[in-house]
Amino acid sequence: MREIVVFSGSAHRALASGICERLGVPLSPVELTRFSNDCLQAQLQANCRQRDVYLVQPLVPPTQEHLMELLLMVDAARGASADKITAVIPYYAYARSDKKDASRLSIGGRLVADMLATAGVDRVITMTLHAPQVHAFFSVPVDHLTALGVLADHFLGQDLTNAVVVSPDFGNAKTATQFARLLGLPVAAGSKKRLADDRVVIDAIVGDVAGRRAIVLDDEIATGGSILELLDRLGDQGCVEAAVACTHGLFVGKAVERLRGHPMISEVVTTDTVPPPAVAADWPELRVLSVAGLLAEAVARVHAGESVASLFDDVDPTLGTPQPRLFD
Amino acid sequence: MREIVVFSGSAHRALASGICERLGVPLSPVELTRFSNDCLQAQLQANCRQRDVYLVQPLVPPTQEHLMELLLMVDAARGASADKITAVIPYYAYARSDKKDASRLSIGGRLVADMLATAGVDRVITMTLHAPQVHAFFSVPVDHLTALGVLADHFLGQDLTNAVVVSPDFGNAKTATQFARLLGLPVAAGSKKRLADDRVVIDAIVGDVAGRRAIVLDDEIATGGSILELLDRLGDQGCVEAAVACTHGLFVGKAVERLRGHPMISEVVTTDTVPPPAVAADWPELRVLSVAGLLAEAVARVHAGESVASLFDDVDPTLGTPQPRLFD
Amino acid sequence: MREIVVFSGSAHRALASGICERLGVPLSPVELTRFSNDCLQAQLQANCRQRDVYLVQPLVPPTQEHLMELLLMVDAARGASADKITAVIPYYAYARSDKKDASRLSIGGRLVADMLATAGVDRVITMTLHAPQVHAFFSVPVDHLTALGVLADHFLGQDLTNAVVVSPDFGNAKTATQFARLLGLPVAAGSKKRLADDRVVIDAIVGDVAGRRAIVLDDEIATGGSILELLDRLGDQGCVEAAVACTHGLFVGKAVERLRGHPMISEVVTTDTVPPPAVAADWPELRVLSVAGLLAEAVARVHAGESVASLFDDVDPTLGTPQPRLFD
Amino acid sequence: MREIVVFSGSAHRALASGICERLGVPLSPVELTRFSNDCLQAQLQANCRQRDVYLVQPLVPPTQEHLMELLLMVDAARGASADKITAVIPYYAYARSDKKDASRLSIGGRLVADMLATAGVDRVITMTLHAPQVHAFFSVPVDHLTALGVLADHFLGQDLTNAVVVSPDFGNAKTATQFARLLGLPVAAGSKKRLADDRVVIDAIVGDVAGRRAIVLDDEIATGGSILELLDRLGDQGCVEAAVACTHGLFVGKAVERLRGHPMISEVVTTDTVPPPAVAADWPELRVLSVAGLLAEAVARVHAGESVASLFDDVDPTLGTPQPRLFD
Amino acid sequence: MREIVVFSGSAHRALASGICERLGVPLSPVELTRFSNDCLQAQLQANCRQRDVYLVQPLVPPTQEHLMELLLMVDAARGASADKITAVIPYYAYARSDKKDASRLSIGGRLVADMLATAGVDRVITMTLHAPQVHAFFSVPVDHLTALGVLADHFLGQDLTNAVVVSPDFGNAKTATQFARLLGLPVAAGSKKRLADDRVVIDAIVGDVAGRRAIVLDDEIATGGSILELLDRLGDQGCVEAAVACTHGLFVGKAVERLRGHPMISEVVTTDTVPPPAVAADWPELRVLSVAGLLAEAVARVHAGESVASLFDDVDPTLGTPQPRLFD
Amino acid sequence: MREIVVFSGSAHRALASGICERLGVPLSPVELTRFSNDCLQAQLQANCRQRDVYLVQPLVPPTQEHLMELLLMVDAARGASADKITAVIPYYAYARSDKKDASRLSIGGRLVADMLATAGVDRVITMTLHAPQVHAFFSVPVDHLTALGVLADHFLGQDLTNAVVVSPDFGNAKTATQFARLLGLPVAAGSKKRLADDRVVIDAIVGDVAGRRAIVLDDEIATGGSILELLDRLGDQGCVEAAVACTHGLFVGKAVERLRGHPMISEVVTTDTVPPPAVAADWPELRVLSVAGLLAEAVARVHAGESVASLFDDVDPTLGTPQPRLFD
Repeated sequence: MREIVVFSGSAHRALASGICERLGVPLSPVELTRFSNDCLQAQLQANCRQRDVYLVQPLVPPTQEHLMELLLMVDAARGASADKITAVIPYYAYARSDKKDASRLSIGGRLVADMLATAGVDRVITMTLHAPQVHAFFSVPVDHLTALGVLADHFLGQDLTNAVVVSPDFGNAKTATQFARLLGLPVAAGSKKRLADDRVVIDAIVGDVAGRRAIVLDDEIATGGSILELLDRLGDQGCVEAAVACTHGLFVGKAVERLRGHPMISEVVTTDTVPPPAVAADWPELRVLSVAGLLAEAVARVHAGESVASLFDDVDPTLGTPQPRLFD
Repeated sequence: MREIVVFSGSAHRALASGICERLGVPLSPVELTRFSNDCLQAQLQANCRQRDVYLVQPLVPPTQEHLMELLLMVDAARGASADKITAVIPYYAYARSDKKDASRLSIGGRLVADMLATAGVDRVITMTLHAPQVHAFFSVPVDHLTALGVLADHFLGQDLTNAVVVSPDFGNAKTATQFARLLGLPVAAGSKKRLADDRVVIDAIVGDVAGRRAIVLDDEIATGGSILELLDRLGDQGCVEAAVACTHGLFVGKAVERLRGHPMISEVVTTDTVPPPAVAADWPELRVLSVAGLLAEAVARVHAGESVASLFDDVDPTLGTPQPRLFD
Repeated sequence: MREIVVFSGSAHRALASGICERLGVPLSPVELTRFSNDCLQAQLQANCRQRDVYLVQPLVPPTQEHLMELLLMVDAARGASADKITAVIPYYAYARSDKKDASRLSIGGRLVADMLATAGVDRVITMTLHAPQVHAFFSVPVDHLTALGVLADHFLGQDLTNAVVVSPDFGNAKTATQFARLLGLPVAAGSKKRLADDRVVIDAIVGDVAGRRAIVLDDEIATGGSILELLDRLGDQGCVEAAVACTHGLFVGKAVERLRGHPMISEVVTTDTVPPPAVAADWPELRVLSVAGLLAEAVARVHAGESVASLFDDVDPTLGTPQPRLFD
Repeated sequence: MREIVVFSGSAHRALASGICERLGVPLSPVELTRFSNDCLQAQLQANCRQRDVYLVQPLVPPTQEHLMELLLMVDAARGASADKITAVIPYYAYARSDKKDASRLSIGGRLVADMLATAGVDRVITMTLHAPQVHAFFSVPVDHLTALGVLADHFLGQDLTNAVVVSPDFGNAKTATQFARLLGLPVAAGSKKRLADDRVVIDAIVGDVAGRRAIVLDDEIATGGSILELLDRLGDQGCVEAAVACTHGLFVGKAVERLRGHPMISEVVTTDTVPPPAVAADWPELRVLSVAGLLAEAVARVHAGESVASLFDDVDPTLGTPQPRLFD
Repeated sequence: MREIVVFSGSAHRALASGICERLGVPLSPVELTRFSNDCLQAQLQANCRQRDVYLVQPLVPPTQEHLMELLLMVDAARGASADKITAVIPYYAYARSDKKDASRLSIGGRLVADMLATAGVDRVITMTLHAPQVHAFFSVPVDHLTALGVLADHFLGQDLTNAVVVSPDFGNAKTATQFARLLGLPVAAGSKKRLADDRVVIDAIVGDVAGRRAIVLDDEIATGGSILELLDRLGDQGCVEAAVACTHGLFVGKAVERLRGHPMISEVVTTDTVPPPAVAADWPELRVLSVAGLLAEAVARVHAGESVASLFDDVDPTLGTPQPRLFD
Repeated sequence: MREIVVFSGSAHRALASGICERLGVPLSPVELTRFSNDCLQAQLQANCRQRDVYLVQPLVPPTQEHLMELLLMVDAARGASADKITAVIPYYAYARSDKKDASRLSIGGRLVADMLATAGVDRVITMTLHAPQVHAFFSVPVDHLTALGVLADHFLGQDLTNAVVVSPDFGNAKTATQFARLLGLPVAAGSKKRLADDRVVIDAIVGDVAGRRAIVLDDEIATGGSILELLDRLGDQGCVEAAVACTHGLFVGKAVERLRGHPMISEVVTTDTVPPPAVAADWPELRVLSVAGLLAEAVARVHAGESVASLFDDVDPTLGTPQPRLFD
């Protein structure tokens, strides 16, 4: 069988190392050079000829740098006669640009998918896209994994009496509903209202949260602003404690400041699809679950030609790699 | 300026005629031939050379026939040296196949978008896609119109005291919220629960509907099953009357039987993006609003190089062609 | 070696089963779903990852349904990371749309070939294209098989004294000539005259048929109209008996009514590239020869990387998969 | 309107000049350079920016040189920001490579069509393709003209009593039939037999030619071998005089030697889609009709966005640019 | 005629304004948004429909940010139905990645050219590419301008007695030779020697520089390291004064520190293809010449369909947009 | 492993045979047919199905014929379901057309690269491209070999005291510098001056050559004109003897006449990337070194998935297939 070769850009070498460790293959080196005019260059330092090449790079800030690194690595692998090139993008940041919210707007989610195909990607492995439709932005096959099982496992180890799953908005309510069912809990959702183009408030909670412990679920937490506002509304409605869970814990801007030590928050659970925040060691409520095992298993199955779907037998298909039968 | 030429497939000639009438141009004839082996053939019977060609065809049942007609007309127009070919697809049925709900599933929404591009389409004009992300399935520019303004105009002529906008599920809740704001009303939504792969029930209504008149809004009504179940739940919660509104009123299968004369339904409001049901004349509660004017205006602006966005100055951009400023 | 996986659309499962039986592999299941808005969806129910996938579907009526099924299966296989996707299309109906007979006409044969490539087909196996040039409409490799050997074998078991091969028109005369040489017989052809756009008559027979037994050969029989008229002319010229042979026996419209029990017809010989007519059991002169063995052998050779050409060592190359030396 | 600019490769400047003269535009100069390593280079010496550019080049021997000249001119025009590039290829030589006559054979007709598209051609104007299906080898629009009207006009000025149109083989018989109908004459055809891979003989004439004057029609005459053999068979069957007509009079190899002064040949009629033979002045029976007017008219109509079909109102559509109604 | 619309990314608005001023058109606004996850989004705030759109963006540091801005603006313009999209990239930084200097290396110059084409660019206007071959990395037409005339004009206003043009290395020697001829001066060049992968020294000057005033010419100055070393070698060989000239004056890293006030440097002449250094006002020897006029003229000619070549009638064609005749 | 199959066009069968001999595989036959209308056709006479196919063809005169042969062989291999198609083009003649030296000029180097990709090439193996940037004209992976090691080996066997490497112009000076370092020699270069568009003279030599033995290095020698003029200038400057070395020894036009027996030339060293001149046996100073071993080794490594870079461990990477470390 064609050999497997794994490279990592500079975005998240720890995750790439974790994947390689579980696969039992070395992480092959890449030399990333920055020219004095700020252009980047990638040199893959292991033979790619007829190899099954995996390039690990979540699109975390500085996003444009990491995206360009990934594209240049793909270009180098293609020029080096790789047999198949799989981009492993645990966090596909541009998925948030998935529609036209205004006139003459770029749709970055589709553009970046097309750019990856132009550079020479043959397949993409990703996790928890902001909307499931983004899957179809790619012209190449996509293995769309979900961390929902990993997150659910964490909470299933707890006493869930009187808990309720809460989605910050209707857009994420479908996912929250599935998550609630994995945990055997009811669901509630915030209703967002746009005050102006640049100001959004959550003005109501639909569903019963009074006296309950909330498990707030979102796909990604960036500045934590929505979560904060949701907590306020939950507090208004008589909810006194909340766990916050998300797949992609970016925690940029004031996120740490806002969430760490917040009186209502019992814990913040996330995964390592993106590098953990620098202050992770000083944030007692933070719990980072690893998806390296999940990604390694997916890579191994892709390489061996085995089904990836069966990885997710207890998870709703609309949230990740689909499977034929669920909830039987 | 390049001349405008409009053709219609067999799906909905009445709408094409309505558009042409408003544009003040003739509807040019097409000869659609069915060979004895059931293959179709299209012959455009007006000169297309260097013309700005518009092909009107909603993808209504028999969907495959109408899709193939459209593709063959595009092929014929391209082979006849048309300058620009715009597919006017008021109802893009394959938008519902927009994600992978199960393993090894086709994603028809993207496939058909690619097939239209392969055949030679330069631009698409469509209305109320099932999900806004489907916009980005197309590699060609799309003018995505909304009928929400047309529907809102209808209800704004009524007494809306004590009314509430109701979405059958969370997926459509964002649109319903915007519609509610256009009408100055509160919003509620059904919560769907999947019993098995092929059975879904609405098990709860989030939001207050007791004693109110519901305006149920959905993008499309096919068999009417979801609507019927929603009405039951609304009834359970003390709602006694409902108006039902949708953009695409397909009314297939038992839809007419289910909805016509339903004790809770005061009216069913839809548009002519698809041909009205055969029994329309015998369905007193049915009201079909025409979008021919909207489509004609869009065609005229596209042809003249004018902004299409400004057509929708009072409608939320996520529901249709976007515009720079809203709700100021 | 990569595993072989075979799926069938709904057009002709019996043929697909026959192929699988000869290959000694199971026919893997496909779930074809029709949405209430008449859109189709395909789910392949066996792992395709890195497999050598074959999708069997002749384009028989309802042709558009079967074409769309095939395209959706290709899309699903591609999205499921199939290694190679081969469309096995024993009857490529759109081959008849191969040129511009009139202004601004679609050329379906090329369009459908491009659509298959867009969906993701890597190779096509087909049989007896209406014109050999249609081969080059495809941008992917095509294995173009011929059933002429199968048909010839049938007649070589008969007494051919005083027989003559007759082509209904000049367009098919080259094939008829080759067939005649396989049988060691002379050839004749009908001369068609177009009365108007929609009326064609055969006004003459070139070649000597008086007192002979005719073996009428056509690539496909749909309504049987041409055959009927040819028989009349043959009768005028003193021919008293005819066998009718074709590769694709569609027998649609009045075909059965016209041909069954016709006083001049001794037998009607066809193959199972398309499903046999429903009345086959009640049509004593009909003889359906199976090409499942030929297709299975072609699939096996394609999969094993062996020559397909040598399958046809006694058949003229312009009528099927070519071979280096003939008639030496 | 965008300006028209016409360039000519070195294949047939006289024809290009004739077209320009009729169009009333100058023939713009091209500098074709041959490097010392035999590579070619084209420099267009008139501004192409946003112009409607026409490149005239029949693919006559040395065919590869002329093809490469054409491709380089297309490349230069594209790089020079031409608005539309139309290749005017009155003789598309590679049309003869239109199918797979043997295993692992190139299909030059499709390959060259794809190469023209890759180089940047937007449209092709050509004449009398060897098979009408070759039209669909091109992914760009093709205006396929016919010289049949020009040839028919010539013979309609003669006494056609007792004449018969003869096709050298069945492949061309359909065209000959249409030509015969334009002249109001009966038709006959030679039946070719392949002795070995490299030897073909005409072994019979189907149709009555005894005592008649033959008008032999072929699409192209290269070495004249088939014509010579046909004349022998015609002589055997009592035909004493023949006019020979073709669209593309290449007359290569022994063609002139074979045809000039042949006792049965009364005249050889051809067109200037290719340069006339060097000995034309010394060949009293040769008559070269010009298609420059036809091509100029086609260019003018393409440029002006007018119908090209109506140029051929009295000619059968399968032989050239199609038209809606014929023979009414 | 289609209207012209000009937008600028954030890289160099001053240049874009200068171009617009000379064109007499407004600079249309773009809203560039950075999401909290660091993704970018572009919204063009003027109607693009059927317009001739120009997007001005040199690829200066932060290069990846500016490249992504440009790609998103192209995507937005395409989605907004622009007629033609021209990227005006006065400094194409990735041109330096034009070959494989080592195994498995990315070639950014070609990759970025392909990405621009994928995003939807129709034409590129650029200036002084690092190597003239980079022109052909683009599949779209490129107008490759030169600033050599602008630079030469500057020096032609000086006393050039005893001056010599010096190229820092052989790679740029051809350009320096042409520049020398424009000025009527001799030429010399440094010979670089690579000590190790990351250390290069200039070990010799070929050509006579003793006692002369050097005019050092390079296409781009980034850190100024090569220039500094060249000055040392020139000093060694008895050259006492040098003017330094370049098209792209990036002056990053220690460049200003190294060059400002250098005892041998009489002046540093550059252009505004990139923004001038922040300390420009405090750098008395720096002279920034504007190419806004040249770019505006090129845009105007492209828009009007006029020749761009004639802009450069006194400049060698290998250095910029080519022209038919030079040095006559 | 997939089998290797090697075919040769008619350009240089001896080289192809040499490669096959070293690989231990037979050279598979190709039937190249020239139709009477001068069109070419290729038939590959060995099974290509799922094979790793190599097509050997340097682009030597008649260049267009050989190019078309190569394209047709690629087309045939693709149509015959080859797994991978590698074009082995030891001399890529069109590399000289790599930039726009004048307005509206074709860029053959990119066009031919695109044509090869269109025909179906998956990879290219070539040697000593005229400029290293031409590598990136190809969208498929290129293994760019160098003969510099082969040439250097030859000279390292000689006494190099007092020798100097001389480049005919600055464009080649970088390569000459690297070659000089391989030999441990100094370098000099000619300075070309263009008198008119079609006349170039070398007017000076930069670097010290007086009393030295010159080793003139060029990538290719066609007519030998530049070499001759360089020798004159070298003589002017006191150089009395010269060896001439090049990778591609075309020796067309007056080359042999000019170089054979020239009083200053001690030897002419070249390789067999192109067929040796017909008079090779009568040219005592000519020495043709074979690169068949190098090409065979490259083919073997490509086929086996091994690194090609390590073939060139002592050669500068910019001159051939790159490697990570040099001159350590």
